[in-house]
Amino acid sequence: MSDSSSPLRIGLIGAGRIGQLHAENLRCRLPEARLVMITDASEAAARACAARNGVPHFSTDYREILQRHDVDAVAICSPTDTHVRIIEDAAAAGKHVFCEKPIDPDLGRIDGALAAVARAGVVMQVGFNRRFDASFARIRRAITGGEIGIPHQLRITSRDPGPPPIEYVRVSGGIFMDMTIHDFDMAQFLIGDAVEEVYATGGVRVDPAIGEAGDLDTVTILLKFRGGTTGVIENCRRAVYGYDQRVEVFGSGGKIEAENQYPNTTTLSDGRNVHRELPLHFFLDRYTESYVGEMRAFIQAVHTGGPSPVSGEQARVPVVMALAARLSHRENRPVRLSEIG
Amino acid sequence: MSDSSSPLRIGLIGAGRIGQLHAENLRCRLPEARLVMITDASEAAARACAARNGVPHFSTDYREILQRHDVDAVAICSPTDTHVRIIEDAAAAGKHVFCEKPIDPDLGRIDGALAAVARAGVVMQVGFNRRFDASFARIRRAITGGEIGIPHQLRITSRDPGPPPIEYVRVSGGIFMDMTIHDFDMAQFLIGDAVEEVYATGGVRVDPAIGEAGDLDTVTILLKFRGGTTGVIENCRRAVYGYDQRVEVFGSGGKIEAENQYPNTTTLSDGRNVHRELPLHFFLDRYTESYVGEMRAFIQAVHTGGPSPVSGEQARVPVVMALAARLSHRENRPVRLSEIG
Amino acid sequence: MSDSSSPLRIGLIGAGRIGQLHAENLRCRLPEARLVMITDASEAAARACAARNGVPHFSTDYREILQRHDVDAVAICSPTDTHVRIIEDAAAAGKHVFCEKPIDPDLGRIDGALAAVARAGVVMQVGFNRRFDASFARIRRAITGGEIGIPHQLRITSRDPGPPPIEYVRVSGGIFMDMTIHDFDMAQFLIGDAVEEVYATGGVRVDPAIGEAGDLDTVTILLKFRGGTTGVIENCRRAVYGYDQRVEVFGSGGKIEAENQYPNTTTLSDGRNVHRELPLHFFLDRYTESYVGEMRAFIQAVHTGGPSPVSGEQARVPVVMALAARLSHRENRPVRLSEIG
Amino acid sequence: MSDSSSPLRIGLIGAGRIGQLHAENLRCRLPEARLVMITDASEAAARACAARNGVPHFSTDYREILQRHDVDAVAICSPTDTHVRIIEDAAAAGKHVFCEKPIDPDLGRIDGALAAVARAGVVMQVGFNRRFDASFARIRRAITGGEIGIPHQLRITSRDPGPPPIEYVRVSGGIFMDMTIHDFDMAQFLIGDAVEEVYATGGVRVDPAIGEAGDLDTVTILLKFRGGTTGVIENCRRAVYGYDQRVEVFGSGGKIEAENQYPNTTTLSDGRNVHRELPLHFFLDRYTESYVGEMRAFIQAVHTGGPSPVSGEQARVPVVMALAARLSHRENRPVRLSEIG
Repeated sequence: MSDSSSPLRIGLIGAGRIGQLHAENLRCRLPEARLVMITDASEAAARACAARNGVPHFSTDYREILQRHDVDAVAICSPTDTHVRIIEDAAAAGKHVFCEKPIDPDLGRIDGALAAVARAGVVMQVGFNRRFDASFARIRRAITGGEIGIPHQLRITSRDPGPPPIEYVRVSGGIFMDMTIHDFDMAQFLIGDAVEEVYATGGVRVDPAIGEAGDLDTVTILLKFRGGTTGVIENCRRAVYGYDQRVEVFGSGGKIEAENQYPNTTTLSDGRNVHRELPLHFFLDRYTESYVGEMRAFIQAVHTGGPSPVSGEQARVPVVMALAARLSHRENRPVRLSEIG
Repeated sequence: MSDSSSPLRIGLIGAGRIGQLHAENLRCRLPEARLVMITDASEAAARACAARNGVPHFSTDYREILQRHDVDAVAICSPTDTHVRIIEDAAAAGKHVFCEKPIDPDLGRIDGALAAVARAGVVMQVGFNRRFDASFARIRRAITGGEIGIPHQLRITSRDPGPPPIEYVRVSGGIFMDMTIHDFDMAQFLIGDAVEEVYATGGVRVDPAIGEAGDLDTVTILLKFRGGTTGVIENCRRAVYGYDQRVEVFGSGGKIEAENQYPNTTTLSDGRNVHRELPLHFFLDRYTESYVGEMRAFIQAVHTGGPSPVSGEQARVPVVMALAARLSHRENRPVRLSEIG
Repeated sequence: MSDSSSPLRIGLIGAGRIGQLHAENLRCRLPEARLVMITDASEAAARACAARNGVPHFSTDYREILQRHDVDAVAICSPTDTHVRIIEDAAAAGKHVFCEKPIDPDLGRIDGALAAVARAGVVMQVGFNRRFDASFARIRRAITGGEIGIPHQLRITSRDPGPPPIEYVRVSGGIFMDMTIHDFDMAQFLIGDAVEEVYATGGVRVDPAIGEAGDLDTVTILLKFRGGTTGVIENCRRAVYGYDQRVEVFGSGGKIEAENQYPNTTTLSDGRNVHRELPLHFFLDRYTESYVGEMRAFIQAVHTGGPSPVSGEQARVPVVMALAARLSHRENRPVRLSEIG
Repeated sequence: MSDSSSPLRIGLIGAGRIGQLHAENLRCRLPEARLVMITDASEAAARACAARNGVPHFSTDYREILQRHDVDAVAICSPTDTHVRIIEDAAAAGKHVFCEKPIDPDLGRIDGALAAVARAGVVMQVGFNRRFDASFARIRRAITGGEIGIPHQLRITSRDPGPPPIEYVRVSGGIFMDMTIHDFDMAQFLIGDAVEEVYATGGVRVDPAIGEAGDLDTVTILLKFRGGTTGVIENCRRAVYGYDQRVEVFGSGGKIEAENQYPNTTTLSDGRNVHRELPLHFFLDRYTESYVGEMRAFIQAVHTGGPSPVSGEQARVPVVMALAARLSHRENRPVRLSEIG
């Protein structure tokens, strides 16, 4: 627990696209925190981000942040393969940890990081920002509040406007680990129950190069939760109409659906049809507010002594699910998460 | 009151488009009535309509219907300029009267017909079918049921997909009498209060030939009701996107809106936009069910001894409003209905 | 091929709920056909239906229909366990066959009936009426017309407002054969490709008595089509908000969705929320027009010499899928249709 | 024209609710400008706002801003009765002027201020922020781009969730000047044509105290534009369902509508109805982005030497319309703007 009457002092590690976004949110939207230092492997990036946001210190070495007494917490936005090491170092230095998703694609390494966090007793939160989207959060409240009764069937539709560069695909860990992981987390978050079994199908429908890289680009996954709820996740790397992010939950007392978000509310009727513009194009537009929300929640968790709303243990689960989905697709059979670990 | 255990026996006068529609509805949808005879100035039309609907008798002379003892009521679907005479004859013969709108464009003649109906003590209903549209009827129920509190503001949007032939426009009595008359009736029906004052503006925006014929094709009319509610009617003879039939009422407790109706419920998202098809094209598609509903209500009114849900007195009011609107537009000033009569 | 200038002469076998519906549609909406005779195991039912629809003959024995020379086709609406025998008899008598779904739950018996139809060279159509729903037909046109490119992912949501009586459940053949069968047909119809593999999950969520009867009430099924499209079917025996009948297809060029249908188009905003009424309650309301459409298509197929738009061979497929789904659920593994036959 | 490579240096006059909003937007969202000084009649307010936004100087006297050489422009957010004097002083000091609406309720005083601005040759923009709302801006683009052809009929629905305190109502200048003024500006902005005539009706429907204060709370206004377009404005001081801000324009080539904005995109179906939450509650939520947009446009106008997208001359027009509406209502007749001046 920190002194909530003074702003939480944060060091930002990684000043790439997401790091910059967090820096700006901390400056403008989150008076309850203050950025003290920014580090990035690129000194130019660190300096620019610090200048733009009025942050007094910058460096290329994240350990300088950990050494500062005027830093309470770190926000880790560096490449995924650096997460575990930084988490362990930060925990050892007694700093609270906000870390972008995924912690790591390797369960053993995740477990090491989580053990370090537990030993240090610091608060840890992982960046599954979509939980903080106003619509998905509303669905969660409908479920916890009993507005739709007992959930029977969940559907998550999540499609990107276009695939990432093929170079990225090759190192992404595969669509289940890279893209579906958000939906795996959304599934456990919304239903509030553990997934026990995964059955994954999929193919290469968007770009043969993705198949040549050993990956899939269009997948449909069936989930079974412990309590009997079933779920379906539909993913595709390319929806020509833009970013498709919808959820629907059906239960004994009703259903709740979240539609896509649009750049404006206009509808135009002409001699051909009745139409509106395409949805907000991609995640930085659609999830603008959810990035603010997750950081606000982290700050509050630190101030109140936790627990964090997206704990390391919770963030481990989607990685297990991704591994199970990969195996399920390979062997074309339902795979229980207990097979994975 | 008639014997409701046996079907109401109806004679149809006029076998044009609307007459045929009523004949088919009586045959298929209204077992509580039976068509006994059909007349039309064209013998071929009368014969064809009778044959198609299994009606035993036909003629070119509507008086033959009035002479039959096995006819309880007439449905008058002949040209407007014949309405008053037929109503008066039918009433004198003791037949209940269903008459298409408008009774007549002349108030004196209307009053003559209404007096004849009153003397005869028969039930009379005028064909303002839109009152029986499921959506508009739902709005009326919301108002009478207090679901939106006291109505403050009414808006009726009513646009045709295209203007009628210019020959028709010339004899139509003008847009207020021919087109707005439906909306004038809708206004008094929905709010359940009398309009006291009308202010009408308009112009020729669709086709100069309409202006040369002395008419308007695009009008906006402001209504004041006795109880202080105000209303707006928007009309146009051509909406390129099809038949535009919407209503909205705002009140102290909320608002209720009726949207257009569509041929199906699909929405298509492609690389350009998110769209649906155009609304149902015109009145025979949009108001299919309301024609059944009005005739069912007439049959029931006869069976129960009335009153009819669209009395002659009520049907007189939109004619007064049309005359007031014409005068208001000519003199560019609000006109009280009491000026008209 | 029959003489399309004269109405198709039909005998109706079975005057229960669906039989009566077809009788009324034939009388009112389908002048291109004429009901000649009605039979039902209950003489009272046959007589009443004949009287209501002006049909000259009725009987308790369907073979009387088959013996008539003035009958071109039969519409079989009797209980499922009578279908095969009547089809075989009708085909032997040279009558074209419209038969309600399913033909039979037993593949061997279906094959016998189809062989009889093939030998006789008559037209046969099975009553998968939902194909003729305006919205689902629009989706099919979008797919055949290339409006959404190559289909990648299909989703069918189909939930009833409430379960049938438990007595019915016990003899229904199970949810896959009784309820999902419509969706299995919809899947093959919309995508226009063969399903190769089925994976079915499900549980008892609505009523324990359904489980005690050996059935499921809530199922989610994953389909794989030959061409790589995947599909998901969501079923439940009870949706508290009413009949939930939606479809969505996502493809390389876009997506198309069909929403539920509502009794009117109004939306009401009050101090609590913005709301509309619940969807049309059940299939007789929602699919009113599709029953007309399927019969119109059958009449036309006979007139043009076929083929029927829902052939017996096509109607066999959903039965195979239902059997595969049952096996898949029992063994919790994907089942290829080729395992079933 | 200023040096667009360096941020525009702005002094903020008035640190009330809107002033604080602009200060925060300038700090966080508008790197192309920089707040140099803040003044407010309340020293505490000025100090707090300066501290919160890292602004180096504050004072109770706006003239200190005008004396600074490091200030290019002022943003006037002080009470309306101070606008004219500050505009004149700022213009005399060569400062560009952003001023909240309305400039002043008195046309003579407005003309004095505009003359001062013209003499000084500075850029002036008035805070009709709704023009910068994404939906209304989209409608404007549809009109200028010919997407709906020639506009025939405009409708603006603008209702507040609740009336302001009665003390405010008494000094507000009346509903036309205080509330409708936004819609008057929207009308001229969207149609891009001059209104020539106004007919206003209205009453006291929300709170008798508003009537006792000599004001109306529910008004409907009909506008005629020079080119023949007509418009309707519907206002009410209280909509129980929240802030109702919609626009619809119908033209020869189609129509475009802007719906309300909602806090999320979810729809919930339960056993009673299908519903969503109420719209965003009030203007700070609904028009958040339009406040940023208008300030961005002002900064850009100064950088490019103007003209401003909401000039003083344009901002004068809604005041004329409000005066005409007041007269129209008093005398119950259409009033031409040329009567007012």
